[in-house]
Amino acid sequence: MHLSELTHPNQLHGLSIYQLQQIARQIREKHLQTVATSGGHLGPGLGVVELTLALYQTLDLDRDKVTWDVGHQAYPHKLITGRYDGFHTLRQKDGIAGYLKRSESEFDHFGAGHASTSISAALGMALARDAKGEKFKTVAVIGDGALTGGMALEAINHAGHLPKTNLLVVLNDNEMSISPNVGAIPRYLNKIRLSPPVQFLSDNLEEQVKNLPFSPELSRLKEGMKRLAVPKVGAVFEELGFTYMGPVDGHNLEELIAMFKEAHQIQGPVLVHVSTVKGKGYAIAEADQVGYHAQTPFNLATGKVNPSSKPKPPGYSKVFGETLSKLAENDPRIIGITAAMATGTGLDILQKRVPKQYIDVGIAEQHAVTLAAGLACEGMRPVATIYSTFLQRAFDQIIHDVCIQKLPVFFCMDRAGIVGSDGPTHQGMYDIAYLRCIPNMVLMAPKDEAELQRMVVTGINYTKGAIALRYPRGNGYGVPLMEEGWEPLPIGKGEVLRQGDDILLVAYGSMVYPAMQTAEILTEHGIEATVINARFAKPLDTELILPLAQQIGRVVTLEEGCLQGGFGAALLEAMMDAEVVVPVTRVGVPDLLVDHATAEESKAELSLTPPQMADRILKLFSKQPVAVS
Amino acid sequence: MHLSELTHPNQLHGLSIYQLQQIARQIREKHLQTVATSGGHLGPGLGVVELTLALYQTLDLDRDKVTWDVGHQAYPHKLITGRYDGFHTLRQKDGIAGYLKRSESEFDHFGAGHASTSISAALGMALARDAKGEKFKTVAVIGDGALTGGMALEAINHAGHLPKTNLLVVLNDNEMSISPNVGAIPRYLNKIRLSPPVQFLSDNLEEQVKNLPFSPELSRLKEGMKRLAVPKVGAVFEELGFTYMGPVDGHNLEELIAMFKEAHQIQGPVLVHVSTVKGKGYAIAEADQVGYHAQTPFNLATGKVNPSSKPKPPGYSKVFGETLSKLAENDPRIIGITAAMATGTGLDILQKRVPKQYIDVGIAEQHAVTLAAGLACEGMRPVATIYSTFLQRAFDQIIHDVCIQKLPVFFCMDRAGIVGSDGPTHQGMYDIAYLRCIPNMVLMAPKDEAELQRMVVTGINYTKGAIALRYPRGNGYGVPLMEEGWEPLPIGKGEVLRQGDDILLVAYGSMVYPAMQTAEILTEHGIEATVINARFAKPLDTELILPLAQQIGRVVTLEEGCLQGGFGAALLEAMMDAEVVVPVTRVGVPDLLVDHATAEESKAELSLTPPQMADRILKLFSKQPVAVS
Repeated sequence: MHLSELTHPNQLHGLSIYQLQQIARQIREKHLQTVATSGGHLGPGLGVVELTLALYQTLDLDRDKVTWDVGHQAYPHKLITGRYDGFHTLRQKDGIAGYLKRSESEFDHFGAGHASTSISAALGMALARDAKGEKFKTVAVIGDGALTGGMALEAINHAGHLPKTNLLVVLNDNEMSISPNVGAIPRYLNKIRLSPPVQFLSDNLEEQVKNLPFSPELSRLKEGMKRLAVPKVGAVFEELGFTYMGPVDGHNLEELIAMFKEAHQIQGPVLVHVSTVKGKGYAIAEADQVGYHAQTPFNLATGKVNPSSKPKPPGYSKVFGETLSKLAENDPRIIGITAAMATGTGLDILQKRVPKQYIDVGIAEQHAVTLAAGLACEGMRPVATIYSTFLQRAFDQIIHDVCIQKLPVFFCMDRAGIVGSDGPTHQGMYDIAYLRCIPNMVLMAPKDEAELQRMVVTGINYTKGAIALRYPRGNGYGVPLMEEGWEPLPIGKGEVLRQGDDILLVAYGSMVYPAMQTAEILTEHGIEATVINARFAKPLDTELILPLAQQIGRVVTLEEGCLQGGFGAALLEAMMDAEVVVPVTRVGVPDLLVDHATAEESKAELSLTPPQMADRILKLFSKQPVAVS
Repeated sequence: MHLSELTHPNQLHGLSIYQLQQIARQIREKHLQTVATSGGHLGPGLGVVELTLALYQTLDLDRDKVTWDVGHQAYPHKLITGRYDGFHTLRQKDGIAGYLKRSESEFDHFGAGHASTSISAALGMALARDAKGEKFKTVAVIGDGALTGGMALEAINHAGHLPKTNLLVVLNDNEMSISPNVGAIPRYLNKIRLSPPVQFLSDNLEEQVKNLPFSPELSRLKEGMKRLAVPKVGAVFEELGFTYMGPVDGHNLEELIAMFKEAHQIQGPVLVHVSTVKGKGYAIAEADQVGYHAQTPFNLATGKVNPSSKPKPPGYSKVFGETLSKLAENDPRIIGITAAMATGTGLDILQKRVPKQYIDVGIAEQHAVTLAAGLACEGMRPVATIYSTFLQRAFDQIIHDVCIQKLPVFFCMDRAGIVGSDGPTHQGMYDIAYLRCIPNMVLMAPKDEAELQRMVVTGINYTKGAIALRYPRGNGYGVPLMEEGWEPLPIGKGEVLRQGDDILLVAYGSMVYPAMQTAEILTEHGIEATVINARFAKPLDTELILPLAQQIGRVVTLEEGCLQGGFGAALLEAMMDAEVVVPVTRVGVPDLLVDHATAEESKAELSLTPPQMADRILKLFSKQPVAVS
C-alpha cells in the first residue's frame, strides 16, 4: 500500500511493521518535499512519524479522539487522514492549514496553534464520554516543551485525581521547544532518559535475552525490567496520579505499538513517555534542530534556503533585537525576557551579545510577565518580548501584576497584525483592544523600522508604568536605521506627515505608509488628505488630532488589528468625549477570523490595500471608485 | 511587648518563643475582633500567625523581600508592619486594604488578589538581586490551593533549574482553597503529611528522645529522621530542582524558626512545607473552614453572622445557581465548571443537587476554559462559571480554544462591575472590552435577577458559538422570579422601557434600573428620555437603537465597566458605521483603578448614581444641575 492510497487512518490496522516502515518513509518524503517547496514546520513532524503510525494502528479513529498539542507536528497525521492529494497546498490560501482545524477534517478533533492546551481538551472529551456513557479512547499528544506551560500542568493536576477517567497522554519528548527547553521539568525528563538502567536496558537488552531458553516479548520485558531496576522512573508523574510508562524509543514502531496497546489496557490517566528526535530522517534537520523547526522553501539536497529574488530590508524582529542589544550593552538594568521564542523575536541577538541580560522562561507567558513585574520592583528594566497572540496568555498578569501596581514593564509584541500563513491562531489581532482597556498602560506602534528603534528607546526610558510596543511580522521598508540620536519620543505625541483639507487620515503603526500611499491615490482623484502618524494609541494625541478632525470634518482611521475596541474606537471615544462630532470611517479588520494566506492576500481580502482604501474613501465623496486590480 | 508597640517587623528579632506566643495571641484577638466587626478574610490569616512570626524573626525586613500569594492571609503581616492602629479601617474606603498593596506599606513588597503569582514575582526579585550583585533573601508564601494554578507551576519549573538562585518558597498547606482542594498536587501533599513515618515522628518523637543520654535539637532531628525514614518525601519537588523540607507543624514556633533558619542556609531554590490549620485558634472557624474563609460581620461568641436590618432580595449568585441547577436536572448535557469558587459563584447549589454535572478544577481558569471546549466538542453544554476578574486568566483560551473553533461554551461571569471592598484586583471592569473584540462571541447582561434567569436559559440554548453573561456582585431588586416560561431571549435584541423625545439612554445590565431612575429625575426637570435595556453588547440591537439615536439626536450610554472599548464604544462604533453621527455621552468607569470601598461609595465617587448621572445629562441641555446629595 502506498501512502497516497491511505484515505482513512483505520486502514493502518493490520499493516505489518515492514508495511508501516514503508509508509513512514513515504510520509517523510512527502513531508520533506512539501516543506522544501512551500515552507512550513519541518522538524516537529519528522520526529513523530512512527509515533503517529503506531498510535493510529492502536486506535479506531472513527470513534477515538486525538488532540495534538500546537498542531505543527501533525503533518504526518494530515497525510494519513485524507489530505495527501491536497498536501502541496500546505499553508497556502484556501489550502491545507499549517495547524489542525476542526473545520478541515473530521479527524482534526481539536484545533490548536498555541501550546499546552491538548490535555485540557482531551480531558474534557473524556469527561463528556463518561457522562454520556460512551466508550472511546481520548489521547493528547504533547511535547516536552509544551508540558512546561502552566495550563498543561493544571490539566495534569486535574486528570491525576480522576482515577476512573481513562486518558492517555503521549509525551513527545524531543528535548526541544523551538529552542532547547528550559526548566526543571525538561531536565527531569532528561534525567529519566539518561538514567543508567534505562540507558543500559535500551542499549543491551536484545543482546542479553538472546541466550534465554524462551523468547520474551521484548518491549514488555524491557518495561518490566526498567520498573524493577529503577523504581523512581517517572515518580513525579506517578505521584501526580498518572501511570507512567517509558521512556520508549519513538522511532521503533514495534516498541511503540506494544506500549500503546498496553497503555490502552490501563484504567485512569496514563502517560507514555516517547523519546523522539526532532527532524528524524533528514540529517540536516537533525543536526540543526532550531533552524529546521520551521523553514522557508529550501533545497532538499543541501538544506540551503532558496535565495530570494531580491535583497530584502531587515526584518522588524532583527532591528528590534539589534537595538535592544545595543541599549542593553550600556545599561545593565535591561533584561530581555522570552517565552521560548528567542529566534522568532530577535532576542537571540541579545542572548549572544549580552547573555547575562537575557532570560528564556520556557513556554510560560504568564510567569514571564509576573517575573518581569518582580524584576521591575527591584529597579530593573524588564522587556517582555512576546508575540501579540501569545501575550494573550498573560492578560491577567498584565492587569493584576503590572498595571495595577504601575510597574514599569516594557512589552514588545512582535507579529502584531496580520501574520500570514500561520492563520487564525497566530494573528496578532487583538492587542490594541485588550491592552487599551487597562489603566497605567501606554500603547505605541512605529511606522517603520527606524521608528521602531526610537520606540525601543522610548520604552526603555519610560518608568511611570507599563508601556507596550507592537510591530508587524516581516521586513521593514529599508529606511536608514538610526546610528545616533537615540532620543526617546515624547509620550502620546503623533506627527503630521502630509497636509490636505478634504479628509483626515489617522494611521497607526504599520498602516502609516499605506495611509500615505492611499493619500497619493486620493490626490490623483482631486481629494487632498492630511495624514497623521499617531504613534500612540494610548494616550492618543488629542491635542494634535481633534482640532484637525473638527476643522477637516471627516476622519478615517487605519489600523492593522480588530476594529472592536481598537485604535479607531479609541479616536471615536476621544472625539465624542470632546464633542467633536464628525463622521469617522474606521479601516481595519472586522469581526471575523483571518484565515491562513500570505499577508498580502489577507490584506487584499480585507480591503486593506491602498487602492482599496482609496476606493472606499472616494465613495465617501461620491466619486468614481478607483479600479482595483 | 504588646502587638500595638510593634511598628517594624525587625522588632521581632530576639523575642523569645514565649514572647512570640504572646504576640500570636494578640494578633489572633485583633484579627478576630476586626473581622467580626468589619468583615473580611478570617481563616487564612488565623492559619499563618505563627508562620508569619517565625518567618519574620529569621528575616531582615529592611532588606529581605516577602511575596504573599493572594494576600488575603496577610492580616498578621499587616498587624506587625505598622498597621495595628489603623486596622479597624480594614476594607473600608480610604482604610487598610484587604489585600497587599505596594502603595500601602514599604513592607508590602508585591501586591496581589489573584492566586498563584507569588513565586514568579519573588523569582523576578531574586534574579534582579543577583544581577545587581546585592544580598538579600526573597521569599514567596503560597497556599497549597494556589500551587495548582498553572503560573505557579511555570515558576517552579523555571526556579527549579536555577541552582544558584536563592529563593525560598514557603508552602502554606492548609488543605484548602476556599473549598477543599482539588487535584493531584494537593493529594500528593496530603500523602506526604499522612505518610506513616511522618505521622509517627510527629506524634512520638518527643516521647522517644526523652530517654536519650543527650538532648538533641528536636526539629533538626525530626527532619533528619524523616529524610532517613522516608527518602521519597517531597520527591516531586526534589526532582524539580527544589530542596524540600518538611512537613513542619505550622503552629509550632520553635520548629518553624529552626526550619526557616536552616532553609536560609541552603543554596538554590528551597521549598518549606508547612502544615497549617485554616482558622487556627478560633474553634468555630476551624470547624467550618469554607464558611469562615471570609465572613461578613459576625458575633464572636457564637460565630453567627449579624442579622441584616431588613431582609434582602436574593443575590445574583444564588439565582444563577438555582436556575442552572433547575435546567441541569432536566438536561444531562449541562456541566457546570468552577475554578475553586463553588460557594462564591452559586455553583455549590449545582454541586449539591446534580453532583454528576458539576466539576471543580481547582484554581485553574485556563484549564477550566479549554476543558469546557473539549466538553463542547462532544456535545455537552459546558457552563464556565468564573468571576469577571478571574476570567482574565483564560483570555487566550477563550480566543484560541473556544471562539476560533466556534465552540458553544457558556461563560457566566459573576462579580462583573464594581465589587466593593475587595478593591482593584477584583473589580470586574474589563470583561466587556476584552470579550467584545473576539469573533464568534455573544455578550449579554440582565437588568435584574429575573432577566438573569432568562439569560441563563438563553445561554444554554445558544449553540452557534460562545456566549457570555455578566452580572454584578450582590443582591437583585426583589422582582418576581420566573417559575415558568423558560424561553430563551432572541439573540441581539434589546427592549424599550420608556419613551421620550429629548434624549436616548441606552443602558447595559446593572445600569438599566439606574438609567430608569435617572430618566425619572430628568422628567422632573422637563427632559423626557427614552430608555433602552440593550440586553446584548454583542451583537448590538442596531435595528432598534440606531433609528432612535438618529431621531432623538442625542445619546447617553450607561455601563458598569471600563469605558475604553466597552459597551458605549460598541454603540459609537455601530453608529459611525451606519453614519449616524450624533453626540454620544458615555457613562461608565473611566481609565483608572477603582480602590476598595463599598460599591455604593465607589459608584458615588465615579458619578454613577442616578442623581449624578441626571446632573451630567442636564448639563448637556444647559439646564440647572440637580443638587446631588
